Parts: sequence; C-alpha cells; structure tokens
Amino acid sequence: MRTVTYGGACSLDGFIAGPHGEIDWLHFSDDVRDVMTAFWKDVDTILMGRKTWAFAEAQGGGGGGMGRRMKSYVFSRTLGPITAQGVTLVSEDAADFVRRLKEQPGGRICLLGGGELARSLLDAGLVDEIGLNVHPVLLGDGIPTFGGRGTRVPLALTESRTLHGGCVLMNYRVRAS
Amino acid sequence: MRTVTYGGACSLDGFIAGPHGEIDWLHFSDDVRDVMTAFWKDVDTILMGRKTWAFAEAQGGGGGGMGRRMKSYVFSRTLGPITAQGVTLVSEDAADFVRRLKEQPGGRICLLGGGELARSLLDAGLVDEIGLNVHPVLLGDGIPTFGGRGTRVPLALTESRTLHGGCVLMNYRVRAS
Repeated sequence: MRTVTYGGACSLDGFIAGPHGEIDWLHFSDDVRDVMTAFWKDVDTILMGRKTWAFAEAQGGGGGGMGRRMKSYVFSRTLGPITAQGVTLVSEDAADFVRRLKEQPGGRICLLGGGELARSLLDAGLVDEIGLNVHPVLLGDGIPTFGGRGTRVPLALTESRTLHGGCVLMNYRVRAS
Repeated sequence: MRTVTYGGACSLDGFIAGPHGEIDWLHFSDDVRDVMTAFWKDVDTILMGRKTWAFAEAQGGGGGGMGRRMKSYVFSRTLGPITAQGVTLVSEDAADFVRRLKEQPGGRICLLGGGELARSLLDAGLVDEIGLNVHPVLLGDGIPTFGGRGTRVPLALTESRTLHGGCVLMNYRVRAS
C-alpha cells in the first residue's frame, strides 16, 4: 500500500500562507533542502485541491514536472479542463479516488495543503503521515494547515528536531483510531 | 519590566481543548511535571479570560491558590462579581490593565488560554514569551490556541525538545516587529 504524506511549512498559529497567499515568511536553508531532498526522492504523485492548484499555476509551477516523471491530481468539481502536462483533474469523490490510488503500484504520494482536501482525506483515514516545518511566526490569519472541522485523529511522533532559523520539524505517523 | 508568558498544551491542529472543553487527550509525565515546576516557580500572577475562568471554576481550581500566594485576574465586561480569594475581576480594557501591571514590581505573569485574550494582548505587544507543549493528536475542532484574527507577530525559538509520549515542547521569545 502506498503512503500518503501531508505536510509542509506552517506558522506556529497553524497557517500555511497569509490571507492573501503570502509566503514571504518562509525560511529556506540547507536544513530545509536536505529534508526536502530526502522526502521527495520517493514521491511520484502529488495530490492537491483547487485552490492549491490555482496557487501553483500562478507561481508558474503548475506542470508538476520537478525535473522527472511526476503525476499530479487536482481535486475539484467546478474546475474546467487542465491542459498542463502530467496534471489530471479529478471530479469524483476525493476519498474514493485516493483509496484506489493507494492500492495501485507506485511510489509515495504527497498531499499538498491548504487543509480542506487534507481534512477530508484525514477524516477518511487515508493519510498515513504528517510532516510540518513550524516556522517562528504568528501570521494571525491566512490559509489554515488543517481546514474546517474534522474528526479526532491520534498521531505518533516519529521525529522532531530544530532546523536552521528557529524552525521545528515534526513528523508523525497517523495511528489507527 | 515583568514578563508575560502565554502557553499551555495544545493539539497539532492548534486547539487547547475539544469543542466541549475535552482535555482527555492531555498527556502528563515526569517531563511535563519538570517543565511546569520550572515555569511556575517564578510566576505570581495569572491572567485569564471569562471562558477560561468559567472552566477553571468548573474544575474546582478557581481559587488560584496553588499552594502559595498567587494573584489571578479575570478579564470580562459582562461577568458578575467574583468572590473567590485571590481572584480579581477586571472590566477595563485588558491591554491598558496589563501594560500597567507589567510596570509594577512582581514576578512572572502567566497568561492562560483560550486564545481570545491572548490574541488581544499579542496584538498590543504585551506578550513576551510563548510556550507550547504540542501533543500528538488532531482534535479536529475545539477551543483555538490563538483565537480570532490578529496581526503578524515574529518570534524567536528559544527551546525545542521532545517530551515523553510524543509531545514537543516549543518555547519562543516574541520579537519586536
């Protein structure tokens, strides 16, 4: 069974971006590069919601190429056709789709935030790991790491360490509830 | 100038209690006892909002005694008189009151959550430290650690370490913005 990991950088008050998508507070370092390299080497599939796709597209990174073969799935019931190479629009129920995807052969699956898609997949028991890089800032408002209301999900800490710039990396395995 | 510290235990998705005040997920350990003992030894004043006071009172811990002289201030414009010993109701603007309090001689000041009072004092630049004990659970809903919308507050990480049970202690100093 393939592993689904939800993760990314966030503020201490739980936002992955400011109210207007601001990410100027993100701190890049050699530590972050090493963590990203280790994580992404086994990932061959990216899942994202409509808003994250719009953000990725606006940043010019919509193709999901990342220098090698990577499949991206964008979940939306309202979005028009997507023509970017390697990117597939999924308009069926996200949980049903991801459940089948996990049973197919392949590498690790990375679930990108915002938190609405993450919340629905967490509630469906389809997320296996959570990894956050907590930055030393309160944004006060923005796009939440974990959107909307959900069920209680017990976790097990697998790693915690300080990264350069006062960031704290926290990795968790989702425990069966 | 006295130091105001906001802190407590929270879930990874940023709640200090469940939607009905649930704290059954809190993990107590020797680590937590040591952290609490070190923190509380210099604290002589507690600040809390109306809802936290109601919670403390319901738990039977409303007196703020804690085995020695401790002053508690409850901020509310609507609450009736409080008769518990050592507890003072403050109906004036919280920021104005705390600004004066910090200039008076005394020990450390502990600001208890939920986050509405914390948010107003953070926005007013009156919180000096934040300390969170992040528990390995997503609650999905509840009383937020940082309530409402606020301004951006830059922080500096002063300590981060793993505690028993997969909890992560993170201490920050609030940086001048």
